[in-house]
Amino acid sequence: MKRIYIAIAIIISTTTVGQEADPSFVQKIFQKSLGEQQGYYWLKNLCEEAGPRLAGSKGDDQGVMWAYETLDTLGYDLVQKQPVDVRHWERGVETATYIKRDKQGYRMMKKLNITALGGSVSTPGGNEGKGIKAEVIEIKNREDLYAKRMELKGKIAFFNEPMDPWLINTGSAYGKAGWQRWGGASEAAKLGAVASINRSLTHRLDDFPHTGAMTYQPGVKKIPAAAISTNDAEWLSKELEKNTEGIIHLTIGAKDIGRRNSNNVIAEIKGSEKPDEIILVGGHLDSWDLGTGAQDDGAGVAHAMHAVWLLKELGYKPKHTLRIVLFANEEFGLDGARKYAKEGLEKGRKHVLCIESDGGSGAPRGFSLPREIHDNNPSMIKALDKLLARYGCREWTQGGSGADVSQIVDDGVLLCGYRADSQRYFDYHHTSQDDIKSVHPRELELGSASIAAFIYFFDQNL
Amino acid sequence: MKRIYIAIAIIISTTTVGQEADPSFVQKIFQKSLGEQQGYYWLKNLCEEAGPRLAGSKGDDQGVMWAYETLDTLGYDLVQKQPVDVRHWERGVETATYIKRDKQGYRMMKKLNITALGGSVSTPGGNEGKGIKAEVIEIKNREDLYAKRMELKGKIAFFNEPMDPWLINTGSAYGKAGWQRWGGASEAAKLGAVASINRSLTHRLDDFPHTGAMTYQPGVKKIPAAAISTNDAEWLSKELEKNTEGIIHLTIGAKDIGRRNSNNVIAEIKGSEKPDEIILVGGHLDSWDLGTGAQDDGAGVAHAMHAVWLLKELGYKPKHTLRIVLFANEEFGLDGARKYAKEGLEKGRKHVLCIESDGGSGAPRGFSLPREIHDNNPSMIKALDKLLARYGCREWTQGGSGADVSQIVDDGVLLCGYRADSQRYFDYHHTSQDDIKSVHPRELELGSASIAAFIYFFDQNL
Repeated sequence: MKRIYIAIAIIISTTTVGQEADPSFVQKIFQKSLGEQQGYYWLKNLCEEAGPRLAGSKGDDQGVMWAYETLDTLGYDLVQKQPVDVRHWERGVETATYIKRDKQGYRMMKKLNITALGGSVSTPGGNEGKGIKAEVIEIKNREDLYAKRMELKGKIAFFNEPMDPWLINTGSAYGKAGWQRWGGASEAAKLGAVASINRSLTHRLDDFPHTGAMTYQPGVKKIPAAAISTNDAEWLSKELEKNTEGIIHLTIGAKDIGRRNSNNVIAEIKGSEKPDEIILVGGHLDSWDLGTGAQDDGAGVAHAMHAVWLLKELGYKPKHTLRIVLFANEEFGLDGARKYAKEGLEKGRKHVLCIESDGGSGAPRGFSLPREIHDNNPSMIKALDKLLARYGCREWTQGGSGADVSQIVDDGVLLCGYRADSQRYFDYHHTSQDDIKSVHPRELELGSASIAAFIYFFDQNL
Repeated sequence: MKRIYIAIAIIISTTTVGQEADPSFVQKIFQKSLGEQQGYYWLKNLCEEAGPRLAGSKGDDQGVMWAYETLDTLGYDLVQKQPVDVRHWERGVETATYIKRDKQGYRMMKKLNITALGGSVSTPGGNEGKGIKAEVIEIKNREDLYAKRMELKGKIAFFNEPMDPWLINTGSAYGKAGWQRWGGASEAAKLGAVASINRSLTHRLDDFPHTGAMTYQPGVKKIPAAAISTNDAEWLSKELEKNTEGIIHLTIGAKDIGRRNSNNVIAEIKGSEKPDEIILVGGHLDSWDLGTGAQDDGAGVAHAMHAVWLLKELGYKPKHTLRIVLFANEEFGLDGARKYAKEGLEKGRKHVLCIESDGGSGAPRGFSLPREIHDNNPSMIKALDKLLARYGCREWTQGGSGADVSQIVDDGVLLCGYRADSQRYFDYHHTSQDDIKSVHPRELELGSASIAAFIYFFDQNL
């Protein structure tokens, strides 16, 4: 396989690139995008009409219908739904109260802002049960988990490793601290803990807990898992330092419902010269259930829909087939992307380039590129930079296209990701605050236009 | 003069640069800035303790005291106030009501969101007067002003040229549309208009009017001048298209109070090798009166204070003298900068580099550089880019350092400007919304660290 990759890289790097990309057409793309703000209106409409779109929920159905019906009005050569079987989980009651005996012997209570993690089991008895009451042990990092391995039996583990403030890209800090949410519950359960609470994954100090997917290790007892707001995590940590006799009363009513139907939604413009070679642009239609998913990933949906629409409205006739794919259930198992990658294409067609937007609506910073371009084709990066730097796209990083398109493994496919400014994304991510108010129209539209220009560049140069 | 400039340029461009700038020290600057967020806490404190800081107001006095007292705790070699005589103007009553006779002969009224422009005279009788009632003529652009030159007599001119949505940098769009606010009133008065209203200078559609300085042409009758919110400008424009018999009742109670005292606030660390050569970093302490000026220019104040403090706290001993200057009354005549430029230095000392931050708290995009570097010293830009690109500073533009430092004309001084992402700045600029809630702590801190690193680079390489 390695040899094949090198061969491809050489072919690309010896091609003359960038000569076909017309800067004045790119300017028109940006003017249309910023002037009309169609992508922003679509995103607002999606958030308002479908609302939260957790895979398998009514909102998810609404989102699919919204996307299909909207795309169907736009005159594309193909608009279709691809059925996807998705995991469906539902939130129930969720409360957490810190209770302690103070110096006078009275009890004081403080309500903590928590939310169940996606996939969590309930506390015993579910919505009708009495919940769990137990002491809390704070785990400050992986080393601390090891140090306190004998203390967790019968307790609630409280994972409290803040996202690293020193990392400039907030996505990197999210990745580094993510183990607490993804795997904390099973790690704690192996040591006898009865429930797990993790500090919300955000740099911001506020009262909004951040949900997100978690997984149980096979063979390990499933214990309830919830996230706590950063303000409450800070408070609880200080409280525990005092060594008071505090316990948490936790009630989680969440449960897995089983499998349900959802859909990928696909639209395309057939290529004029290479109709069997596809340039794909995508985001995911599903969201978490707490907010309306304007950032994650309504912005990606709007970007993909708007980027292709901008090219179409400007009269551009693509050489390759341009395909929009709005994936089902990214958040909770990548069901849509897996189905699409496995069955999404007619025989004899292949993807040559895929672009994903799943990092919110921030102002453009650049694109991630596959190794074949990033490491082996400086002239292509130079041409991209020449075309797009004036619009704010100047970062050409390697790898990390996105969870959905990285399921696509066609020979030689180039996987790319739109990179929005990351500073504000995790302020909203997976919370009740992820709504249209968090979206700045011009920043979103700069993204749509950047992606349209990126597609145009590769349509001309592949 | 041209010959001298070229000579300087050659000297700079043949110097080997960037070798002295240690990337690991720059990393420490960013870590400290993001980890502690001291600049954000200062900015919050300034906004809360001083509030709005219109030149010559009590808030302005509070701001000066806040800055002096805060800097005085930090162990600098010099902290001082420089008295500045400033223009003081005060807002009074301000109301605008649109009144029309509808089809049934009844009158309907709509309150319009307006605010007096800085420097505006009052309507007759001021706060106690009856205001002006007159028909409105919409002026869509400069050509339209000429076309309607015979229609304005006795009317209220309504300047309604939106900020160009197609310009990527919002500051450029602001500059292009700014004539309506700066000079609209006198242009209209010359044609017989009795008052002037201009569309607020922002891309955003909302209900908040944007104030800002305006000027009267000598010898032209002074008429009241106000800004109207963009939503109301859109509404009024549609209403006027219907050719209904509408008038506006406008009351403005603003007035010039005369001259008052304010202060530039200055602090410095004496240079170890070239104490008589000064690297200056500044912003302006004054703000408009509607908000607390977190963006304009509290962010610049925080940037300047924090950048130098970061270097000091990290144990850095500058070769040049590092000087913070927080200028008085930028908004309303540049009194502070003019005084400083004229009298600010002891004999035998000179400024070698000045950096201004007056574009808000957005994430870093880069710096504007003087022609001597931008056009003639690519190796210096390359070294800066190598050091700062990873932190988001990648735009090295030419010219436009800032209104305050551009008053400084020492021979060979290099004038630079911090460039924050511009998309959100004019959402808040000169409105009641310009407060600490609009500031993202990490974006602000990335700015402080970028400026500190920029100072460090030049301290090492000049």
